[in-house]
Amino acid sequence: MTYLNPDRIFDPDPAVRKIARVLYESVQDLPILSPHTHVDPKILADNEPFPDPTELILIPDHYILRLLYSHGLRLEDFGVPTHDGITVETDHRKIWQLFGEHYHLFTGTPTGLWMDAELLEVFGVHEKLTGETALSIYDQLQEKLQSEEFLPRKMYETFNIEVLATTDAPFDTLEDHKLIRESDWDGRIIPTFRPDSVTDLSHFQWHDNLRRLGSACGYEITSYATFIQALEERRSFFKTMGCTATDHSMENPMTHRLTDGEADNLFQRALKGRIETNQAHSFTAHMLMEMARMSTEDGLVMQIHPGIMRNHNLKVFNQFGPDMGGDIPIRTEYTRNLHELLNTYGNDPRFRVIIFTLDETVFARELAPLAGHYPAMWLGSAWWFIDSVQGMTIFREQVTESAGFHKTVGFIDDTRAFPSISARHDVSRRVDANFLARQVARHLIDPEEAQRIIRSLAYDLSKKAYHL
Amino acid sequence: MTYLNPDRIFDPDPAVRKIARVLYESVQDLPILSPHTHVDPKILADNEPFPDPTELILIPDHYILRLLYSHGLRLEDFGVPTHDGITVETDHRKIWQLFGEHYHLFTGTPTGLWMDAELLEVFGVHEKLTGETALSIYDQLQEKLQSEEFLPRKMYETFNIEVLATTDAPFDTLEDHKLIRESDWDGRIIPTFRPDSVTDLSHFQWHDNLRRLGSACGYEITSYATFIQALEERRSFFKTMGCTATDHSMENPMTHRLTDGEADNLFQRALKGRIETNQAHSFTAHMLMEMARMSTEDGLVMQIHPGIMRNHNLKVFNQFGPDMGGDIPIRTEYTRNLHELLNTYGNDPRFRVIIFTLDETVFARELAPLAGHYPAMWLGSAWWFIDSVQGMTIFREQVTESAGFHKTVGFIDDTRAFPSISARHDVSRRVDANFLARQVARHLIDPEEAQRIIRSLAYDLSKKAYHL
Amino acid sequence: MTYLNPDRIFDPDPAVRKIARVLYESVQDLPILSPHTHVDPKILADNEPFPDPTELILIPDHYILRLLYSHGLRLEDFGVPTHDGITVETDHRKIWQLFGEHYHLFTGTPTGLWMDAELLEVFGVHEKLTGETALSIYDQLQEKLQSEEFLPRKMYETFNIEVLATTDAPFDTLEDHKLIRESDWDGRIIPTFRPDSVTDLSHFQWHDNLRRLGSACGYEITSYATFIQALEERRSFFKTMGCTATDHSMENPMTHRLTDGEADNLFQRALKGRIETNQAHSFTAHMLMEMARMSTEDGLVMQIHPGIMRNHNLKVFNQFGPDMGGDIPIRTEYTRNLHELLNTYGNDPRFRVIIFTLDETVFARELAPLAGHYPAMWLGSAWWFIDSVQGMTIFREQVTESAGFHKTVGFIDDTRAFPSISARHDVSRRVDANFLARQVARHLIDPEEAQRIIRSLAYDLSKKAYHL
Repeated sequence: MTYLNPDRIFDPDPAVRKIARVLYESVQDLPILSPHTHVDPKILADNEPFPDPTELILIPDHYILRLLYSHGLRLEDFGVPTHDGITVETDHRKIWQLFGEHYHLFTGTPTGLWMDAELLEVFGVHEKLTGETALSIYDQLQEKLQSEEFLPRKMYETFNIEVLATTDAPFDTLEDHKLIRESDWDGRIIPTFRPDSVTDLSHFQWHDNLRRLGSACGYEITSYATFIQALEERRSFFKTMGCTATDHSMENPMTHRLTDGEADNLFQRALKGRIETNQAHSFTAHMLMEMARMSTEDGLVMQIHPGIMRNHNLKVFNQFGPDMGGDIPIRTEYTRNLHELLNTYGNDPRFRVIIFTLDETVFARELAPLAGHYPAMWLGSAWWFIDSVQGMTIFREQVTESAGFHKTVGFIDDTRAFPSISARHDVSRRVDANFLARQVARHLIDPEEAQRIIRSLAYDLSKKAYHL
Repeated sequence: MTYLNPDRIFDPDPAVRKIARVLYESVQDLPILSPHTHVDPKILADNEPFPDPTELILIPDHYILRLLYSHGLRLEDFGVPTHDGITVETDHRKIWQLFGEHYHLFTGTPTGLWMDAELLEVFGVHEKLTGETALSIYDQLQEKLQSEEFLPRKMYETFNIEVLATTDAPFDTLEDHKLIRESDWDGRIIPTFRPDSVTDLSHFQWHDNLRRLGSACGYEITSYATFIQALEERRSFFKTMGCTATDHSMENPMTHRLTDGEADNLFQRALKGRIETNQAHSFTAHMLMEMARMSTEDGLVMQIHPGIMRNHNLKVFNQFGPDMGGDIPIRTEYTRNLHELLNTYGNDPRFRVIIFTLDETVFARELAPLAGHYPAMWLGSAWWFIDSVQGMTIFREQVTESAGFHKTVGFIDDTRAFPSISARHDVSRRVDANFLARQVARHLIDPEEAQRIIRSLAYDLSKKAYHL
Repeated sequence: MTYLNPDRIFDPDPAVRKIARVLYESVQDLPILSPHTHVDPKILADNEPFPDPTELILIPDHYILRLLYSHGLRLEDFGVPTHDGITVETDHRKIWQLFGEHYHLFTGTPTGLWMDAELLEVFGVHEKLTGETALSIYDQLQEKLQSEEFLPRKMYETFNIEVLATTDAPFDTLEDHKLIRESDWDGRIIPTFRPDSVTDLSHFQWHDNLRRLGSACGYEITSYATFIQALEERRSFFKTMGCTATDHSMENPMTHRLTDGEADNLFQRALKGRIETNQAHSFTAHMLMEMARMSTEDGLVMQIHPGIMRNHNLKVFNQFGPDMGGDIPIRTEYTRNLHELLNTYGNDPRFRVIIFTLDETVFARELAPLAGHYPAMWLGSAWWFIDSVQGMTIFREQVTESAGFHKTVGFIDDTRAFPSISARHDVSRRVDANFLARQVARHLIDPEEAQRIIRSLAYDLSKKAYHL
């Protein structure tokens, strides 16, 4: 049977496959570095059993929900909580059954690939998920989830994770991180400083967020100067909690410094609720410069991942909130947009910025040439819609010739789905092994060097890029 | 000899090829669904013998003419009729000879691939077309074309076509469709409602077209309100003639509703011949919203295929008219442009819109994420310049990971070249079989599921998507 | 050992590899046509021994420098001369040692591939360059460079170069070309007319350049009319020196004719130092039309290669000058931008324009459809960042289906690195052989025709396209 064949993902050509297998096996058991996730630290702080398969695997995963929704299924029927109080399905076995009946829709997608691997390799389920097997699988999963072996911290250890970074608002008090650090458990869970919800003056909850930032600092923030001070203090606090990186998302990665006066002017307008979209964008462009400035000073690695139009489907957003699969990529420009940032800080040895994209067309044209020149710039891995077999292969094909291997960071799982972490890193290691094997089989890379490179891609580069 | 090898298009890797062959053979003889063509229904209404090979195959095919023209050959020498009355070659054997002498220019193009298959598999010609063989091939074709077996309706049956949709102006009286329906022949030829020539206020024959629309309805169209009424009536009439879909082309797929007052204002300006380009674009954007609104009401499936700059070469356009190979693709944006359309109708179960592109860069970035979220949106197949081995492969590679297989419609031949239909669908089935075989050989898809999917791609999805 | 395997670059699939090898071997020893380089003609005029490996291979090669710089190494440490007089490393053995220690960074890049081949096949070095072998290799190279066999003209002959075009400013007196023509050596070194430094009114040395143009003509240039006259005279002079082509670079390939009055107005502003960026761009767009007009009259083939933002890193530019690896590609549009040029001259049999790009996304969407229609337009090869195994493969994959093989020019090495010329052409011939072999193995191209095509790609098309 081909289901989860040990050679999966590798090219069928025997020469390539043989090399790929050797390369893969050499890194298969390396520890996982996961420097960018959306895992909730609470699950590792509490270390309680996960409630049930539907609650753990299905309801929070917008990768799954969006495809089901696209086939005319209703989010309510999958138990997704609504804002308008409409009743949603609460029978989690019934929801899982519905999922099983439509699981064939995921064939050919990374979600399907991860799920298959997760079911077999994490949970020991030997059947393919279908309408027929759904309830039996549900019961198997449920049983496992109640066992000691599947407690969150235990899974972290089973996955051989060395470090896992969460993503946290700047006003977050990091209580869960504290609990973990103060516990007798030695898993390394670190926060990431993500200030978008306060640096984006047009954020729909900006006033609330600013108040919370003030509370975290112990003073009211009524000026741009205090705002900057607050951010610097919070970065400093995050660092004491193990943080090594910041994270920034926006539609467009424009970078441009305003004068302090101009910045304060926009800040005051926002305080009065009178900010316009283009003004908010100017402020974001300015704050990227400020964040880069702070990074040169405090050494936090900066991550920028633009190019997404959030909440494209307003009906779904209004009813179910954000992160429901309605975020759609847009064309993104980097050469001009990053010009000011890279000219100001890109030659500074204290600075490091990792650039992500959802627009594959820029890998060869813009990102590889930029990372192949500026010492401060590294290339983030293929991510979100493109952290797939084809997407990660295209990433290597498109960036390697101009930027080589050693300015790319390792795999970023970027996941909310804790139990899928090992499956995701496994796919990445297989794809990289296969890419290298193709090069070896075409006599473009020496076998011994491929061996060194696969280790860098699976482990060393993440460690170096994120100062782990 | 490798000429038209039964394994053509399949990967040379023996593992892939073996699987591809099995998948292909399972769908090779399925009926053809052809829901989008530019075939003239008159040929099936009249069912007269085709005049001769040059008239049938060469003169109307702008895929062929453009490449010959690009090598410095003159369209006059291929008998293409001119607008300025210049004498053109009328000796069709001589024209075919000239074609044969330059046929090697088509090596590596889909036109060459289809032509080879058409000559061998439709007409039983066993020689390769060259300058030496041209006249002998001409005579063989000519003989066949005079025979019973090559009458249009007989070819339709030989090709095993189940349904064929033509493309028709909204003022078309569909006389040929009527003749076919009233005949004793049971071929299913259906019209498609394509209103561009009246919804584009800057169309060079707009006033004429509007008058013809009025004639078809039996009243003069002097206001936006009457215009909308006329379109609704014609859609209704088209439905009675078997129509299941509409078709819309434009440079840019911007969608934005105007007020009725604004729309009427633009309409009145057009009536007075005072419309400007950007005003015409606004009206087009508005009419896409109106057409979507009508589709939710009457159930006609909407097709949008933007992204082409028509008649780029004005000299050729002025001398020979449109559709002479001078249409050139342009970069196209969908995430923002379709925002209003999808927000208004994209969640409506009564609505379906099939989106095409000539810009491959949007498949992974924009179209697959949109179709992988909005229930109403389906992905049109690779089309026109990209309905080729490489183009259709890229399509699957780029869309499958985000949208899966089941939000794509089947192959669209979009052809004027009636006798090439079977060859075109055959290439598509081979490409899809090969794509799936690669996935099976890499253990990413189960063989049994690949079997189900290839059938969907070859037949079921077209039927479902177009309500056939 | 796999180092420089004779089958390098070819697919591992035995069927493909076998065909690729045969195709490659049939063109391996064809003469090299190199119609576009940045080789300094002085080296062939003087025919002096090259100074040393570091001076010859490393210091002038911004492909190498940029990647070293991107890893935090200092250009000063590689002996790159500065504008600010800062001391740079002068010990060339020490520099080469540093290069060797970091040579693994080039794994997977075309620079690494060329360098490996150059070391082995040109210089007979059998060791891989590393920190351990660097000095030994330096000494081997140094010894060779002092020998008769490695004098520039001898290398030209050993490489079997038939013609080599340099790139020259319009005010260049072509003294070195004269010396070569008047010598008893019969190598064919021809100039290329590249007027960017005077047609770009915003060029940082424009006034100087204009004065030099005037000097070359023997009169002062104070008006647009004289400027045009001067350019026509210089083109005419270049033609007497063997020139067959012009070359034009700019950010954006906009083409639009101004009136002579408008052109003179901008020219006068520039003379007074009052030109603005958008005005300079208008003038460039106009000059492309003028250059095309002159080409229809004097028959020089026009080359356009837009799409690069020069000197992105101002710090590096200010310290080290241009061509230090800080040029970064930008998204480029052709369908609309070339509209006026192609409409005016694209149907003229006297005119030929070869279009290059650094933006791979336009190959299939814009360039192949344009070249597959306009008789005057040919497709330049993959170039600069994309003259790599992957880049050249994508080029063929993306353009062949719409434009065929016969509207593409042969390989353009575009190099400053004289001793790498044979390695570069060899890679190109291997890539094309492999591309064709894949098509043959998939039964898409007959083997005999592939044989004819590989010869065209390796030799005939360059000869035809550049009127050599």
